[in-house]
Amino acid sequence: MTAFVRNQWYVAAYAHEVGRELLGRTILDEPILLYRTEDGRAVAMADRCVHRRFPLSQKPSRLDGDRVVCGYHGFTYGTDGVCVSVPGQQRIPRTARLATYPVLEQDAFVWVWIGDREPGGTLPPRAPWMDSPDYTVVSGMETIDSGYGLLVDNLLDLSHETYLHGGYIGTPEVAETPITTEVDDRAGIVYVSRHMDDAECPPFYATSTGITGRITRWQDIEYHAPCLYLLHSRIAPAGAPAPGPNGSDPHAFHVEVVYAITPSTEKTTYDFWAVARDFALGDQGVSDFLRENNRTVVLQDVVALNVLQQALDTEQDGYQELSINIDTGGLAARRILARLAAEGAEQGRPAAAR
Amino acid sequence: MTAFVRNQWYVAAYAHEVGRELLGRTILDEPILLYRTEDGRAVAMADRCVHRRFPLSQKPSRLDGDRVVCGYHGFTYGTDGVCVSVPGQQRIPRTARLATYPVLEQDAFVWVWIGDREPGGTLPPRAPWMDSPDYTVVSGMETIDSGYGLLVDNLLDLSHETYLHGGYIGTPEVAETPITTEVDDRAGIVYVSRHMDDAECPPFYATSTGITGRITRWQDIEYHAPCLYLLHSRIAPAGAPAPGPNGSDPHAFHVEVVYAITPSTEKTTYDFWAVARDFALGDQGVSDFLRENNRTVVLQDVVALNVLQQALDTEQDGYQELSINIDTGGLAARRILARLAAEGAEQGRPAAAR
Amino acid sequence: MTAFVRNQWYVAAYAHEVGRELLGRTILDEPILLYRTEDGRAVAMADRCVHRRFPLSQKPSRLDGDRVVCGYHGFTYGTDGVCVSVPGQQRIPRTARLATYPVLEQDAFVWVWIGDREPGGTLPPRAPWMDSPDYTVVSGMETIDSGYGLLVDNLLDLSHETYLHGGYIGTPEVAETPITTEVDDRAGIVYVSRHMDDAECPPFYATSTGITGRITRWQDIEYHAPCLYLLHSRIAPAGAPAPGPNGSDPHAFHVEVVYAITPSTEKTTYDFWAVARDFALGDQGVSDFLRENNRTVVLQDVVALNVLQQALDTEQDGYQELSINIDTGGLAARRILARLAAEGAEQGRPAAAR
Repeated sequence: MTAFVRNQWYVAAYAHEVGRELLGRTILDEPILLYRTEDGRAVAMADRCVHRRFPLSQKPSRLDGDRVVCGYHGFTYGTDGVCVSVPGQQRIPRTARLATYPVLEQDAFVWVWIGDREPGGTLPPRAPWMDSPDYTVVSGMETIDSGYGLLVDNLLDLSHETYLHGGYIGTPEVAETPITTEVDDRAGIVYVSRHMDDAECPPFYATSTGITGRITRWQDIEYHAPCLYLLHSRIAPAGAPAPGPNGSDPHAFHVEVVYAITPSTEKTTYDFWAVARDFALGDQGVSDFLRENNRTVVLQDVVALNVLQQALDTEQDGYQELSINIDTGGLAARRILARLAAEGAEQGRPAAAR
Repeated sequence: MTAFVRNQWYVAAYAHEVGRELLGRTILDEPILLYRTEDGRAVAMADRCVHRRFPLSQKPSRLDGDRVVCGYHGFTYGTDGVCVSVPGQQRIPRTARLATYPVLEQDAFVWVWIGDREPGGTLPPRAPWMDSPDYTVVSGMETIDSGYGLLVDNLLDLSHETYLHGGYIGTPEVAETPITTEVDDRAGIVYVSRHMDDAECPPFYATSTGITGRITRWQDIEYHAPCLYLLHSRIAPAGAPAPGPNGSDPHAFHVEVVYAITPSTEKTTYDFWAVARDFALGDQGVSDFLRENNRTVVLQDVVALNVLQQALDTEQDGYQELSINIDTGGLAARRILARLAAEGAEQGRPAAAR
Repeated sequence: MTAFVRNQWYVAAYAHEVGRELLGRTILDEPILLYRTEDGRAVAMADRCVHRRFPLSQKPSRLDGDRVVCGYHGFTYGTDGVCVSVPGQQRIPRTARLATYPVLEQDAFVWVWIGDREPGGTLPPRAPWMDSPDYTVVSGMETIDSGYGLLVDNLLDLSHETYLHGGYIGTPEVAETPITTEVDDRAGIVYVSRHMDDAECPPFYATSTGITGRITRWQDIEYHAPCLYLLHSRIAPAGAPAPGPNGSDPHAFHVEVVYAITPSTEKTTYDFWAVARDFALGDQGVSDFLRENNRTVVLQDVVALNVLQQALDTEQDGYQELSINIDTGGLAARRILARLAAEGAEQGRPAAAR
């Protein structure tokens, strides 16, 4: 299994999922309670009552103003995790407090910091298209019954679009066209690019853009380990002019595909997916089509990764993989994740023990 | 997990559940077969054929008179567990016999002794309301997917009624009113009392008694570790006279709530529950209401304890609880159970090894 | 659990199950892909892509002519397991090849060799009735959630017909009549015979043969460890002449019951079953009846063995069985299987380490 990377920001939810209902998510094996205060601030704290470990996200636990009331015996907590009421007595034990998590709302996501130290100035990577007026976004989230490493592998090698997603987003040219890979080890970013100059237009883009002939299709991946994956997708009629030197690109359609890959447990992963487009902004039909089509594609991944995890779980002993050029990005991601996991674990140790 | 306590009586079934159909129950991890002979005696023996370990409670195993015929190869046993017939030969191996269990019917329960020694003069604790002509009883049984310790915790701290069972048996006063606790360590009994003099009347009692205003509500718990829990519940209109010095109490309604807590496996528990009342004795509507209402309450516990056990199972390592005054009874019960478990295990060792 | 026996032939499928759809079966914990080439040859290879271990039997994996195309990234393999195409590059790594399995079609079965060495001249045992013009066959396959040893036990002791299959194939005489057992240790064959001269005719035979009175019923078992079980069943009206010295037996009905017992995982087993008869050859009604009736009988075994395996899985520790005369054949089979398992494991070790 790919090790967990601690001392990092993770997407816990879409901003719209966090509200006045208690929401429980498990991130890196930590059960986390999320809700929004009456004045709109997202908060995150341990999802286990200090008394007998009842999950605070479980009904009949509820909000009372900004306070959380445990549904088992009524222990009540403020947004700072401090217990403010217990049943049958006035005195509240000093140690009755829940761990809280640093929270940051950015780009339509609620990020939480999972770590042993404070984030300090560290900020999550950006996905500005998620709430830009220049883009229209459809999104969703699926839970995968596999370790998160399998999803990282999946997304960094898009040659699988041709096979697993044929008829949706895959065409022969994706698997045929070589990639170029760049790795910024220090920043923990992997770049994988595949530029197809004369390719079939898959239904996903034909229907949404209206292009009827062959296309120029660029896939430029930017993976910010561990959690954020960006696919800059550029689609234009074959032969259309390239982007101008100033970045202007009026002849092309742009789709920003955003994934947040959040490890839940060793073998479950939250797969947040979004498709942001800079065309047909107000067209509900296009939005509906892209949402349905992309959800279908994501569910194809979910089925495949569930099956793959089960297959790996029954391997008799050390099994071998065979990697080729298309895996360059995925292997780089694995190296970065292994390094970040080691560094994150190191930061969790007392200074004297390092 | 709370350790099993051996060399004790446990409720295996209601008397009406044990009849001329073979019944299998697992108690303290021991698979037990229960049935009633033609002349009405309840018997209990190991629920595994000596031949190939087929469960005797599994169809097509069946009774032939008072004998049990294994549904796999026809090994046949008498009520003393001795094998009386095997296929294909006349000679029956000397060792072909099933372990039997001491059985005692009392208070509408079938008790079995789980132990390494005989019960001798030890008798189960009493719940005489269960088959008294002065009471009308409704009852049921649910299986919980948690260790039995979680149910003991639950029942010894009724402050949870206010939160988990609000709208049924809980009102604010239950959680607000302090308890008094007494422990008879030698007898293995924990007493927890909560007397509310001026309390809201919850629907459970309002509907069944017809009281419309506020009430005096007494909850007097008597937990006979490990298996029998009694809640003496006294309900009267607020301001009604207290019981007389001779125990007479004509102004109050009395409900005897009886639970038998029988550990099945490490993480499953039989939750036998009964509500005995001394009023509206022949009123079927009241019986139906109390049965439905109490079953709903029990199922709220079942859901909560199933969730809680799952939460505890995913705790990373040693986790902490925080106990307050309301837990005094539950903590006393844990201590008694730990002592009884140690004593029970000790009795299972050969004398020379003690 | 009964140990796996390696370096043996196992039935992987019926011949009619292996065609132009990819079929996955797990045998002795090895995931195996089966399909038939365009010219009709059955092939078997490892059911895991060398790249990232995706199951090749999982959609959208597919056949392209005689080649298998992985549904995840398109790695493509020939019938010899050698990879002939990978995405995004011309060069194919030398090590990109799947293990293949020796395959042999015989008696309507597809046999695969599971082992560390080649089969050499070793051939699977025969069940010629399976595709003989002199017999009509009905067959099926069920998966049992138990180790294969429980099915071997089951089939070698037919006294269970009287109890588990009463009303179908069992009558009192089966359990009552002693058996004779012969063991050919060297060949790994166990013979168990039970000849009933004057027995009730069970519905299975009464309906299919039309016999209305009592019968002579012979059950002659031949178990070729580990995989093939043959029950030569002879049914004739009571008092009918015995077979002639030349083997001719015109007064009797003959049913050849064939089981292939293929261990899938430690606790799952493929139970291939077939009933071949030498009478009413073209009678569809008899075929339908025998198929339904025998499938019911097999499902009675499936339920019993699933329950038995669960019971064994919860045994606290070393449990005891008690064996009697009827178990002579089953115990002989266990001994042979233990010896073959040891020999098979030995053959898997490097010669120097033996």
